[in-house]
Amino acid sequence: MNLLYVLDLIGTAAFAASGALAGVRRNMDMLGVLVLGLVTAIGGGTLRDILLGDTPPFCLKDETYLYISIAIALLTFFGHHVLDRYSNPLLFFDAIGLGTFVVIGTGKALDFHTGFIGAVTMGVMTATAGGVIRDMLSSQVPLILQKEIYASACIVGGVLFYILDRMGWSRPSVMLIAAGVVVGLRLLAIRHNWALPTAPPKTYPTKEK
Amino acid sequence: MNLLYVLDLIGTAAFAASGALAGVRRNMDMLGVLVLGLVTAIGGGTLRDILLGDTPPFCLKDETYLYISIAIALLTFFGHHVLDRYSNPLLFFDAIGLGTFVVIGTGKALDFHTGFIGAVTMGVMTATAGGVIRDMLSSQVPLILQKEIYASACIVGGVLFYILDRMGWSRPSVMLIAAGVVVGLRLLAIRHNWALPTAPPKTYPTKEK
Amino acid sequence: MNLLYVLDLIGTAAFAASGALAGVRRNMDMLGVLVLGLVTAIGGGTLRDILLGDTPPFCLKDETYLYISIAIALLTFFGHHVLDRYSNPLLFFDAIGLGTFVVIGTGKALDFHTGFIGAVTMGVMTATAGGVIRDMLSSQVPLILQKEIYASACIVGGVLFYILDRMGWSRPSVMLIAAGVVVGLRLLAIRHNWALPTAPPKTYPTKEK
Repeated sequence: MNLLYVLDLIGTAAFAASGALAGVRRNMDMLGVLVLGLVTAIGGGTLRDILLGDTPPFCLKDETYLYISIAIALLTFFGHHVLDRYSNPLLFFDAIGLGTFVVIGTGKALDFHTGFIGAVTMGVMTATAGGVIRDMLSSQVPLILQKEIYASACIVGGVLFYILDRMGWSRPSVMLIAAGVVVGLRLLAIRHNWALPTAPPKTYPTKEK
Repeated sequence: MNLLYVLDLIGTAAFAASGALAGVRRNMDMLGVLVLGLVTAIGGGTLRDILLGDTPPFCLKDETYLYISIAIALLTFFGHHVLDRYSNPLLFFDAIGLGTFVVIGTGKALDFHTGFIGAVTMGVMTATAGGVIRDMLSSQVPLILQKEIYASACIVGGVLFYILDRMGWSRPSVMLIAAGVVVGLRLLAIRHNWALPTAPPKTYPTKEK
Repeated sequence: MNLLYVLDLIGTAAFAASGALAGVRRNMDMLGVLVLGLVTAIGGGTLRDILLGDTPPFCLKDETYLYISIAIALLTFFGHHVLDRYSNPLLFFDAIGLGTFVVIGTGKALDFHTGFIGAVTMGVMTATAGGVIRDMLSSQVPLILQKEIYASACIVGGVLFYILDRMGWSRPSVMLIAAGVVVGLRLLAIRHNWALPTAPPKTYPTKEK
């Protein structure tokens, strides 16, 4: 369980960096960068806790998450040139965060007695909602609604978690396997540029106003 | 009360279809379409339950709503050509959803002892917040903030609900009448192209950046 | 404590006016203006109460906030020409709202036993989240993420609140001082056009799609 906590903090840091970087790229001031980093890192877990009724959410109970997010966001603000050179490691840590967040979310939902779809949804949301809020705050259509195999890897992980859990496997091994599958799928998707299909034929003219 | 549940599920399906269709029109991938359908269908009721403190929200307690939304969203993704030919029936079912959601929301708020404005707001929100979140996720100004008589019909229904309820009418008859009024107003608004006024004279130059 | 309640209502009214005015400027209909005024005025406190688990939120417990917001939003809709001539007083009342909301939020968070960062975040959020939701609803990048010294004044106020509170000062005097500092900073920032820095050199080409 200590390993899980460490992975969780690593994921939080990676998400905070990616959120802050998005703010820097949109020329936001220091505070905007801070907010975007923070929201990306803790938004998913916070929304999950609100929905499960477990308030105050995790990050208000253990402020370590807040301190790490803020520190990383500020580091990113001042040192983003350096980060650019390490986008590969960043993607790698981001994938670790993805896997960890999915299993934490799915596990917690099951502890709160949600059903199958509820547990998977909570797992996916824990991992992706922070990024969605980040994109909404930047007035952009959220990335995960557009093209990447990102949430899909989370769905696979959540479903796998549920199945193994129902089969009676121990929680730690379920978590390890499901998280590993998410991380693996995500890294493969990046390497091979996988994408989900968009809706068949008859493409609508994009009716943006 | 069984009739209400059936109407509720019909409304959920109609909202899921309209949400998924919005995703298809914006060329989102399968997952994006799924998320938009799901959020449109259950977003309003979920937000209401969060605000009333009744967590986990209805859709995590009775996963039927989730299964229907997901199934309809996937059907829409693959069969949207067919749906196009049935936009009139879709608008009809959408109106049924609108009326049903308003009375469920207003009734639940009163059961939680909110006051007049609180009850009406919860009713309107149950019916409209899903669509608002859908539009925010698509980075568009929410439709209901712009021109249609949509939320207005909900407000009338919520106010009527409150008045009849305070007059001591039985809950089922209040629900039936208020829902009927919302559905009727909505259908009339569609047929006659009704719209609310925008602010008087001196129109500002639209200061979009 | 009665003074605090009065200041709170003044701030609510000022926030409702600024929200409604934003709706008028974007040519929204009456309902859109109403929603924007309402959300701007009560959004921050509502989000704070959801996060702290104190539901239903303050505005459903004391509907005065709802009545004031709705009345002011409607007045703004019909009389926005008049308001234009008073943008200075509006900014002044807005600053009062900012200071009051910060101390109410920080104080409430401490009563709910959050830590340092949690309390400051709740204070800042109480004061700023309404405006952020307003901008998200208008499909714009939230103002506070871009340039003004707005949230920064709130952060200073929240930190000061925490320090004085830990030093054992009485709650009323802590509130008065912290709120005064926020209001003062905000007014000075307006007068002198202060801004936070954006990230150093190497500005990215704004990658809007």
